[in-house]
Amino acid sequence: MSSHAESPERVTAAVIGLGSMGFGMAQSMKRAGIEVVGYDITSAAVERFAAEGGRSANTLRAAVANADIVVSVVVNAAQTEAVLFGADGISAAMKPGAVFVSSATMDPAIARCLSEQLEALGLHYLDAPISGGAARAAKGELTIMASGSPQAFAAARPALDAMAAKVYELGDAAGTGAAFKMINQLLAGVHIAAACEAITFAAKQGLDLDRVYEVITASAGNSWMFENRVPHVLAGDYTPLSAIEIFVKDLGIVQDMARAERYPVPLVAAALQMYLAASGAGMGRDDDSSLARLYAQLSGAKLPGQEPNKA
Amino acid sequence: MSSHAESPERVTAAVIGLGSMGFGMAQSMKRAGIEVVGYDITSAAVERFAAEGGRSANTLRAAVANADIVVSVVVNAAQTEAVLFGADGISAAMKPGAVFVSSATMDPAIARCLSEQLEALGLHYLDAPISGGAARAAKGELTIMASGSPQAFAAARPALDAMAAKVYELGDAAGTGAAFKMINQLLAGVHIAAACEAITFAAKQGLDLDRVYEVITASAGNSWMFENRVPHVLAGDYTPLSAIEIFVKDLGIVQDMARAERYPVPLVAAALQMYLAASGAGMGRDDDSSLARLYAQLSGAKLPGQEPNKA
Repeated sequence: MSSHAESPERVTAAVIGLGSMGFGMAQSMKRAGIEVVGYDITSAAVERFAAEGGRSANTLRAAVANADIVVSVVVNAAQTEAVLFGADGISAAMKPGAVFVSSATMDPAIARCLSEQLEALGLHYLDAPISGGAARAAKGELTIMASGSPQAFAAARPALDAMAAKVYELGDAAGTGAAFKMINQLLAGVHIAAACEAITFAAKQGLDLDRVYEVITASAGNSWMFENRVPHVLAGDYTPLSAIEIFVKDLGIVQDMARAERYPVPLVAAALQMYLAASGAGMGRDDDSSLARLYAQLSGAKLPGQEPNKA
Repeated sequence: MSSHAESPERVTAAVIGLGSMGFGMAQSMKRAGIEVVGYDITSAAVERFAAEGGRSANTLRAAVANADIVVSVVVNAAQTEAVLFGADGISAAMKPGAVFVSSATMDPAIARCLSEQLEALGLHYLDAPISGGAARAAKGELTIMASGSPQAFAAARPALDAMAAKVYELGDAAGTGAAFKMINQLLAGVHIAAACEAITFAAKQGLDLDRVYEVITASAGNSWMFENRVPHVLAGDYTPLSAIEIFVKDLGIVQDMARAERYPVPLVAAALQMYLAASGAGMGRDDDSSLARLYAQLSGAKLPGQEPNKA
C-alpha cells in the first residue's frame, strides 16, 4: 500500500465529492497524515478545498491516478456509476489493487454489481455507507456500516480509521453494508414522519408543545428522530440540516427493494407519500422536519413561527 | 380529606379493576398507608387481592362508600362510563368531595364529558392516564399524565404519590392528560409497526438480526419501542406483555379523534391496518411484536423460532 507519489511513505487517497460530508472526510484524512487529492464537479467546492490547503485535480482520472484509496462521497447510485464508468470514469484509471470506498446510500443489489465489476478489473470495492452528519464528518467521527472482502477492508483501513469513530464490519460481501443502511433509513424516514404527524396533531389540539416534547422524550413514544427533529419544529426553523429530498430518495429505494422482494412496506409507503407531498408543495430542499409544516397546511394547525399557509 | 371509616386518620381509597396494573397500584397504595378496598368484576381477581391481605367489596357501590379517592383501572372509555353511570354505577354512591382518578386511555373529549358530569354531582375528576407496565405499577413507579382542577389534584395527591415515580401536571382541565397519552400512543403504535416492518425486512434479506439490533440501537433509526420490542422477535417469544389488541384500540381512538378534527394521520392509518390484520390472523391476544410474525407470513421471511406459516 505504499504510495508511488512524491512522499513514498504516505498513503494517498482521493476524495470524489467535496460537499458537506466529503469536505469533512477529506480534512479528517489529511489530519491523519494521508496525502489527499480532492475532486468535485463544482469548481467552487474544489476552490474551497484548495483554500484550506488541500490538493485538487481538474479531472476525475487525474484525481485518482496515484490513489491507494478512492473515497466516493456522492449522492446516489447513479452518480457512483458515473464516477466509475461514465465519461472520465475512474475504473480505467485507478491503480491496480486500489480500493474504491463507496459511501452513497443505495440499493444493495447495485452495490454488489459495482463491486463485481471492479473486482473483475483487479480493484477492490468497500461498501461503506456513512451516517453522522457534517459536524461528525469534520471531526473524523462518522459511523460507517461496511462490508467487503478482507483485501478491501485492509486497503481502506487508513481512511476508515481517519474518518470514523465506529466502523461496523458487517461481512465479506458488498451489499450488506448497503442493506444495513437501508434498514436504518427505513426507520429514520418513518420516525421523522411519525414525529411530525404527532407534534402537529398535538398543535391541532392546542397542547403545550414544549410540554409534549418533555413528556414524550421521557416516554415509550420516544425515538432518536423525535428527540432530534422536533426541536426544529418548536423553533420554527426549517433551515435544511437534512432535506426532504433525502428521504424522497431513500424511502424510494426501500420501496423499490421491497417491491422487488415481494415484501410489503405499508409504513414506508405512507411516509414516502408525505415526503413526496412536501416536495411537491415546494419544501423539497428544506429540512425534513418540514413534514410538520405539511401536516399543518393540511389541517389548519398552527405551529411555532409559522404563517398558516406558507409553503 | 379525613376518612369517616374505622381509622379516622387514614385516607381511604377504592381501586376499581384489579388486573395486572390495578393490582400493583392497589398494593402500592397499601404500602403507603392508604386504606384500600379493591373491586373487580372477576371474582378470581378479588380473591387474589384478598389472599394478599387486601380488603374487598362485592359491589361497586360498596367498594367506594367510604373512599376519599377512587382509582379506576379499567380498559377503556366504555368501561369507565359503566363504572360511573351503569347499573351499580358509583357516581350516586361516592362521598361528596371525593375524587375519581381515571387511568383508562380514552378520547380527550370523553374525559372532558365525564369530568363535567361528575363535577355537576359535587365530585372531582382527575384525568390520569398511566404508563409504565405491571412491574412499575407494583413498585409504585408509574408515570402519570394528569390534568384536572386543583381540588381534584389535591384530593388525589396521596394516591398519586403512592402510585407514581413521575406525575406530569398538564393543566387544570380534564382531557389534557388524555390528549398527551394519545400523542404517546400514536408514536408508540407507529414505532412498533415500523420496528416490525424493518426487522422482518432485514430477515427477508438474510441479514444477521442480532447485528441489525446492535447497529440500529446505536443509530439514528432507533426508537424506545425498537429497543424494547425487537428482542421479543429475536427470541421468538410472543408471550403477551402488551397485546396487539391494545393498539387496535388505541390507534383506533387516535384515528377517530383525528377524523373528527379533520386531521390526516396516514402513518397511524397504515399501522392500524397492520394491527387489525394481525388480530384477524389470530394474534390479537399475543404480544404486539407479533406484527413481525404478520410481516413474515406476508412475505415468506423467516424469523427466529418461527414456523413459516404459524399464525
